[in-house]
Amino acid sequence: MADSSRKLDILKTDGHDRCVTGDVVAVEEPLEIQVASASVDGAAAKSVSITMRTPGNDAELAVGFLYTEGIIGGKGDVRSVTAVGQPDPESGLQNSIRVETAPDVALDLDKLQRHFYTTSSCGVCGKASLDALETTGQQSLATVDTRFGSDLLLALPGRVRDLQPVFTATGGLHAAAAFGPDGEIRVVREDVGRHNATDKVVGALLEAGEVPGHGLGLFVSGRASFELMQKTLLAGIPLLVAVGAPSSLAVDTARAFGMTLVGFLRDGTFNIYAGEDRII
Amino acid sequence: MADSSRKLDILKTDGHDRCVTGDVVAVEEPLEIQVASASVDGAAAKSVSITMRTPGNDAELAVGFLYTEGIIGGKGDVRSVTAVGQPDPESGLQNSIRVETAPDVALDLDKLQRHFYTTSSCGVCGKASLDALETTGQQSLATVDTRFGSDLLLALPGRVRDLQPVFTATGGLHAAAAFGPDGEIRVVREDVGRHNATDKVVGALLEAGEVPGHGLGLFVSGRASFELMQKTLLAGIPLLVAVGAPSSLAVDTARAFGMTLVGFLRDGTFNIYAGEDRII
Repeated sequence: MADSSRKLDILKTDGHDRCVTGDVVAVEEPLEIQVASASVDGAAAKSVSITMRTPGNDAELAVGFLYTEGIIGGKGDVRSVTAVGQPDPESGLQNSIRVETAPDVALDLDKLQRHFYTTSSCGVCGKASLDALETTGQQSLATVDTRFGSDLLLALPGRVRDLQPVFTATGGLHAAAAFGPDGEIRVVREDVGRHNATDKVVGALLEAGEVPGHGLGLFVSGRASFELMQKTLLAGIPLLVAVGAPSSLAVDTARAFGMTLVGFLRDGTFNIYAGEDRII
Repeated sequence: MADSSRKLDILKTDGHDRCVTGDVVAVEEPLEIQVASASVDGAAAKSVSITMRTPGNDAELAVGFLYTEGIIGGKGDVRSVTAVGQPDPESGLQNSIRVETAPDVALDLDKLQRHFYTTSSCGVCGKASLDALETTGQQSLATVDTRFGSDLLLALPGRVRDLQPVFTATGGLHAAAAFGPDGEIRVVREDVGRHNATDKVVGALLEAGEVPGHGLGLFVSGRASFELMQKTLLAGIPLLVAVGAPSSLAVDTARAFGMTLVGFLRDGTFNIYAGEDRII
C-alpha cells in the first residue's frame, strides 16, 4: 500500500475558511506491458500497451490484460513475468513489466489494434463489436446455471469497500471483486482505472486456476461499459454487477452472450438488464 | 439526443419484489478517428484511434482529441472533418470520422504511440510523463492570472447537471464543461467516457476560437487523472475542477505547470491541490 497512495498537504475550504490539512491521494503511474515470445531465439520484447495504473499487483494486471484482450489463452501460455526497466528516480518503482510466453504460443498482437471493435464485414459499429467477440470464438454463457441471492448482491458494495484500504484513505480508487454464490469474496483489487482493477482480478483468478469463472460473479464500483462486459465474458464469468449505470453496448453484449447484468446497485435496490434467471 | 440514449425494458428490484419497467441507457458505440493529410496527393486516410463514445459532437471529439494529443496545433490545421464509413445497420450512425489536415501541417502520428508517458532519457515513469509534456513545448500557466470565486465553484455541479439532458435520462454519462470567471458556462458536453467529454469541450472551444483558454476553467464530473490534467494544459486552461479525487500524477502535473487543481467538489466544500491563488 506504500506505493499505492501518497501523502501531501492541501487546502480544504467551504468557500469562506481555508485550512491546510494533510491528505492522501491515490498514486497514478504509467505501466508499460511488454510481451516476449520464448519461441523466437533472442526475440526482442515488444511494447504492447502503456496504461496509467496504481502500482501493486502489476503481474496480475499484465497477465489479466493479455488474457482479456485475447492475446494469451490461459496461465499455461505464460512462462515468466518480470519487472524490468529503470526504477523511477523518486519512487524506485519499476514501471515496465515483461510477460514471456511459452514457446508453443502463437502471438497475434494485431488483436490489440483491432480491439474487438471492428470486423472486416461491416466495419466499425456496435454490432461489429459483438460479431468480433463471436468471431474470436467466444461462447455464450447461457447454459451456465450458477445463481446468486439478491441479499448477497445488496450487501456487496459495503463488503467490498471494507476490503479497500487505499480507497478508504484516498477516496480515489475503483474496485473490482470476484465473489461466489456463497457470498465469499475471493479477490478484491483496486486501481485508478476500472479496467485495470478488473484485469488485476482476472489475473489473480488465472493464477489461482479459477478461469473460466463459471461459478463466480464480478463486482465493479463504477459503470458497466462494453469493455468491462467483454473482460467478464472472456473470464467466463456469467454475472457482472455494477454500482453505476450500464451502457447500451454492455446490455447488448450481456444479452447476446447469455450473461447476467446488474446495474445501479445502491440504496437497497438494483436493476437487472439481462439474464434475470440467475438472480434469486 | 435520440442517438445518445436508448429505451429498453428492465427489471427493478429491492430483493423481494420485481417489476418490469422502462429504462433509458446511454448509448456506447465505437468511433474510429482517421487522419488524412492534404499535402500528400491521394494519401490514404490513416486510422489513429478507436474510442468507445456516446454519439453526438463527433467532429468536436475528433478535433479535440487530435489537439490534446498534440497531433494538430489548432483549428487552422484542419481543412475538413467528414463522417465516413458504412452506417450501422441498426442505428444508421456512421462510426468513422475523417479529419483532413491542411497541406502545410507536418503530421507526427508517432506521438500517439508515445502518448506523453515516456522520454528517451529515463523511460517510463511519472516524472517522464511530466518531462514529456515539457519536451513537447508545453509552457507553464503560472503567469495566467484569471481568478475564480469559491461560490461559483460550489454552484458548478448543480448547474452543469441541469444542462445534461442525457445524464438526467440515464444516470450514465460523464460531463465536462468550460466556464468563465463570471460564472457563465460556455459549453457542456456529455459522454460515457470522461476523456471523450473533455475532448468534445476542447473541440468546441477550438471551433469557437477560444483556445488557449487562459480565461476559462474546466469542470469534470468524475476524478482528475493525469490525462485530464494534460488535456486541460494543452487547451491552455489554468483551472481543472473535479467532483471526484485527483491522482498523484494529476497533482504533480498541476504543480509543475502552474495550474490550479480543485478536487472533491461536493456537499459544499472542496479541496485545493495546487495553485490556490486563483481561487478567491
